Amino acid sequence: MEAVNFNHWVITLVCVDGPGIVHAVTGAIADAGGNITESQQFTSIGTGRFFMRLQVESVADRAALEAKLLPVVERFEMDWTLDVVGRPIRTLILVTKEGHCLADLLFRKSAGQLGIEVPLVMSNHPDLDRLAGFYEIPFEALRVNSNSDMKAFEDRLIEVVSKYEIELVVLARFMRVLSPETCAALAGKVINIHHSFLPGFKGANPYRQAHERGVKLIGATAHFVTDDLDEGPIIEQNVVRVDHSSSPDALKRIGQNEESRTLTQAVGWLAEHRVLLDGRRTVIFH
Amino acid sequence: MEAVNFNHWVITLVCVDGPGIVHAVTGAIADAGGNITESQQFTSIGTGRFFMRLQVESVADRAALEAKLLPVVERFEMDWTLDVVGRPIRTLILVTKEGHCLADLLFRKSAGQLGIEVPLVMSNHPDLDRLAGFYEIPFEALRVNSNSDMKAFEDRLIEVVSKYEIELVVLARFMRVLSPETCAALAGKVINIHHSFLPGFKGANPYRQAHERGVKLIGATAHFVTDDLDEGPIIEQNVVRVDHSSSPDALKRIGQNEESRTLTQAVGWLAEHRVLLDGRRTVIFH
Amino acid sequence: MEAVNFNHWVITLVCVDGPGIVHAVTGAIADAGGNITESQQFTSIGTGRFFMRLQVESVADRAALEAKLLPVVERFEMDWTLDVVGRPIRTLILVTKEGHCLADLLFRKSAGQLGIEVPLVMSNHPDLDRLAGFYEIPFEALRVNSNSDMKAFEDRLIEVVSKYEIELVVLARFMRVLSPETCAALAGKVINIHHSFLPGFKGANPYRQAHERGVKLIGATAHFVTDDLDEGPIIEQNVVRVDHSSSPDALKRIGQNEESRTLTQAVGWLAEHRVLLDGRRTVIFH
Amino acid sequence: MEAVNFNHWVITLVCVDGPGIVHAVTGAIADAGGNITESQQFTSIGTGRFFMRLQVESVADRAALEAKLLPVVERFEMDWTLDVVGRPIRTLILVTKEGHCLADLLFRKSAGQLGIEVPLVMSNHPDLDRLAGFYEIPFEALRVNSNSDMKAFEDRLIEVVSKYEIELVVLARFMRVLSPETCAALAGKVINIHHSFLPGFKGANPYRQAHERGVKLIGATAHFVTDDLDEGPIIEQNVVRVDHSSSPDALKRIGQNEESRTLTQAVGWLAEHRVLLDGRRTVIFH
Repeated sequence: MEAVNFNHWVITLVCVDGPGIVHAVTGAIADAGGNITESQQFTSIGTGRFFMRLQVESVADRAALEAKLLPVVERFEMDWTLDVVGRPIRTLILVTKEGHCLADLLFRKSAGQLGIEVPLVMSNHPDLDRLAGFYEIPFEALRVNSNSDMKAFEDRLIEVVSKYEIELVVLARFMRVLSPETCAALAGKVINIHHSFLPGFKGANPYRQAHERGVKLIGATAHFVTDDLDEGPIIEQNVVRVDHSSSPDALKRIGQNEESRTLTQAVGWLAEHRVLLDGRRTVIFH
Repeated sequence: MEAVNFNHWVITLVCVDGPGIVHAVTGAIADAGGNITESQQFTSIGTGRFFMRLQVESVADRAALEAKLLPVVERFEMDWTLDVVGRPIRTLILVTKEGHCLADLLFRKSAGQLGIEVPLVMSNHPDLDRLAGFYEIPFEALRVNSNSDMKAFEDRLIEVVSKYEIELVVLARFMRVLSPETCAALAGKVINIHHSFLPGFKGANPYRQAHERGVKLIGATAHFVTDDLDEGPIIEQNVVRVDHSSSPDALKRIGQNEESRTLTQAVGWLAEHRVLLDGRRTVIFH
Repeated sequence: MEAVNFNHWVITLVCVDGPGIVHAVTGAIADAGGNITESQQFTSIGTGRFFMRLQVESVADRAALEAKLLPVVERFEMDWTLDVVGRPIRTLILVTKEGHCLADLLFRKSAGQLGIEVPLVMSNHPDLDRLAGFYEIPFEALRVNSNSDMKAFEDRLIEVVSKYEIELVVLARFMRVLSPETCAALAGKVINIHHSFLPGFKGANPYRQAHERGVKLIGATAHFVTDDLDEGPIIEQNVVRVDHSSSPDALKRIGQNEESRTLTQAVGWLAEHRVLLDGRRTVIFH
Repeated sequence: MEAVNFNHWVITLVCVDGPGIVHAVTGAIADAGGNITESQQFTSIGTGRFFMRLQVESVADRAALEAKLLPVVERFEMDWTLDVVGRPIRTLILVTKEGHCLADLLFRKSAGQLGIEVPLVMSNHPDLDRLAGFYEIPFEALRVNSNSDMKAFEDRLIEVVSKYEIELVVLARFMRVLSPETCAALAGKVINIHHSFLPGFKGANPYRQAHERGVKLIGATAHFVTDDLDEGPIIEQNVVRVDHSSSPDALKRIGQNEESRTLTQAVGWLAEHRVLLDGRRTVIFH
């Protein structure tokens, strides 16, 4: 008698909503000998699109499962993904000088709490080389002092994404703006973190501005990068309470903590295929 | 040309887990012309049971939908419910002297935020007659000064549940203990609220005890009533932060606020068929 | 033998920081036979100003206490207030059509949880007359369809503030903008509530904009009104978490709940003299 | 011309409440040329005791400041402390096998976020030697397999406390019970962390019990150790929300996170002299 090896799959499906979708999908899975262990769905009123995320245990291999799912995918013209649960996604991290987000991402990764592998950290400054080195991640710095430097940086970025088969690019306090061409080339693959206040502040030193204005909450927003700067679909937001006694330095320290935990949370959901795009919005299956 | 009237159904299903359940259920719904607008499922590792809650839009009437679902229900030996979304559940509220929970329940009901109808409030004291009257709910007080009084109260309770076709009995700070016989007769239909502290306190005046012990959190737990007093399956818990400057009176006021909002939340989930029993635990589909 | 009647005072003091202030203040209070039951202080690094709030029990009457405090107040050139703990402050509420903030303020007031008295509710619409009437508060509506109507409304507002000795004007979803002249005339006396999102939205129907943008948090900000619209010193902010399944209507309902609880909280702190102005910021002694 | 060096002091004072205390204290500080930068006070209704914490900038050295304060301290029979702001307190950490609390304490210390120095980590197991070593903290393991082993361990503990002038002993998941004699000898100096649930659970594997009972909140309590096991004055409590889908392992992981952050928070407040004892309760000046 032989042991049976179960594979554990995660499937995401997006299509125009209509009757019979769930039945067709679950039928295909049953045909492949699959047992659904997790299932979430959502229909977006605004766009009329249907979103589904499934986890499935099955003895079927990828080819066998795909063979059963493809007719359904084609019938409903679905965007879809099929992946092994827990496979670390190939992630490129871009940084500048501030290390708090990079430190949290690499610590969580090394502690087994974040399903990513990081073939490279890229930066426009040499400062964070040691931090990457501590976690044994290659680090590549390219100074950016001019528009042509930035062009070279972005060319290298595109090259790296291709060479390392990067699935996710994380701007972890990367202080340069990507060109519309790069945003288009990497659409849906790049996320960013920035501070968030009520009201919002523009320009330099936002924590000093927040202090001068006496805000009572400070926070952070993780979002997809589009060529509409800081305006891509939001993945996660957090805030914490502060008061009049918080100095600008304290606000900055508290705010950085929110930035790193919010970005790490967003990366974690992406790694588990829990984030789907619905036009300018995200659907997050927690 | 005539308008099509859609019915909006909520379905709950519980059975032993196994392959093909979701497919069979969604197939029956598709056969009835139904479109699934909300779907949640959970498999309990401990008990091996499968739980599902669906919301479905369909032109089918109840008989047509039941006809399609019954073969599936029988095949998998399911416990199941089928209801119209938004139908108020018939709720009996039991109180003694403290009115904070009753006030919140009736206010939310009257504001259209809580899907219940309340044919009667029963009490072992006359005090809350006016509050019930303000919301035009009949009120019935039966003094309980002896064991035989309590027997009479419980006999009347059983009678009322039957007469008014009560689906849910809410102990809203009802300060008498129901007999094991009554608990058994109304199993799965009665919920209670009580204060919660870390650590727990027994006996009279728990808020004074909590103050003496200097707790930093106080809260409330809503749970099903079983004959294991205060030990039935938990539906919802909340806490709030307090500190050394909180007087026993302040703790009581804060705690009562937690009691009323926790109980109201639990009733709301029950009214929407979001609470399923899994042995000594609950599955809550938010 | 006769009973001694203690008075319970609340004192706020603001001046340029320097040595000896606390000693001088507490000395004056001791001289007046006072016992300090609550004391909070703060020095603002940015403005160099010192802020203090005290609660004091004393047999001294107002004249006796003032006589002891005045030399200290003059020596340190303090802005100061002296009031009886718990005296309701005279509050004028301005509304338009939406009642959620007015309802919460009047409910909390009637329940004894908010230290205000409300001699009048003013509006530019007749709609909320019944709500004010339920709490037996006079209601005065003045239609505003033109600039000259608005001029008349503001003239009446100034008149009412003077006639009823109003200490606080609360804009409880009042949808008109006060002129710079009125803001100046009532400086430090007017507070407003508005929705808050990350990022911020301008223009009509902010909850629809927030939905389109897929925000994960929505909230509210209570602030002083200055002639810099929506930019006065912030008193309180709150947010709650929402997700992709929240409809624009749900966002609005949730947001309104945040608006009413945030505004009521701000009014409560003002009534207890817990809010002091430090330039463009507030100092809040919780 | 010479630079003036300011010292920054933290003072705590506890005595029977009565008039004139604040005035006397602030007078002594003013006499010593001190400027009060932070001041908090509280009067306990239950015990009639007065509690005060001050931060003071002054050119005075310790002897000069003490000379001014001593007459006040004696007059009001105060318990008091006088320390330099930011001086790390000498802390001994006791562990067994679980490292999550030790890891958080040492990480926060090394990051400059926790005002402690740790001359030694003691354990009844060798397992956490490497973790202590990573932070270059000496580690001493003494196996405890019998009552006489435990006696030897406690003798060594008392010796270590004396030899290293230990001010705080932190039980960071130390799984042995200290004898009443040791508790008495170290009274007010030892703190512990334990899991907290609503309701509470006794005995082995509390996270499994919590799972079986379906709790919706799990948390942790940091408290002083007295010979009344797990019943000493509470310093801090936290909870987080869980649901039916959380496995016993997930509950444990979440609970351990609460344990470490709650214990670290308590240690941080103790290091800043923010925790004062009021009988069986604590006064915490945040």
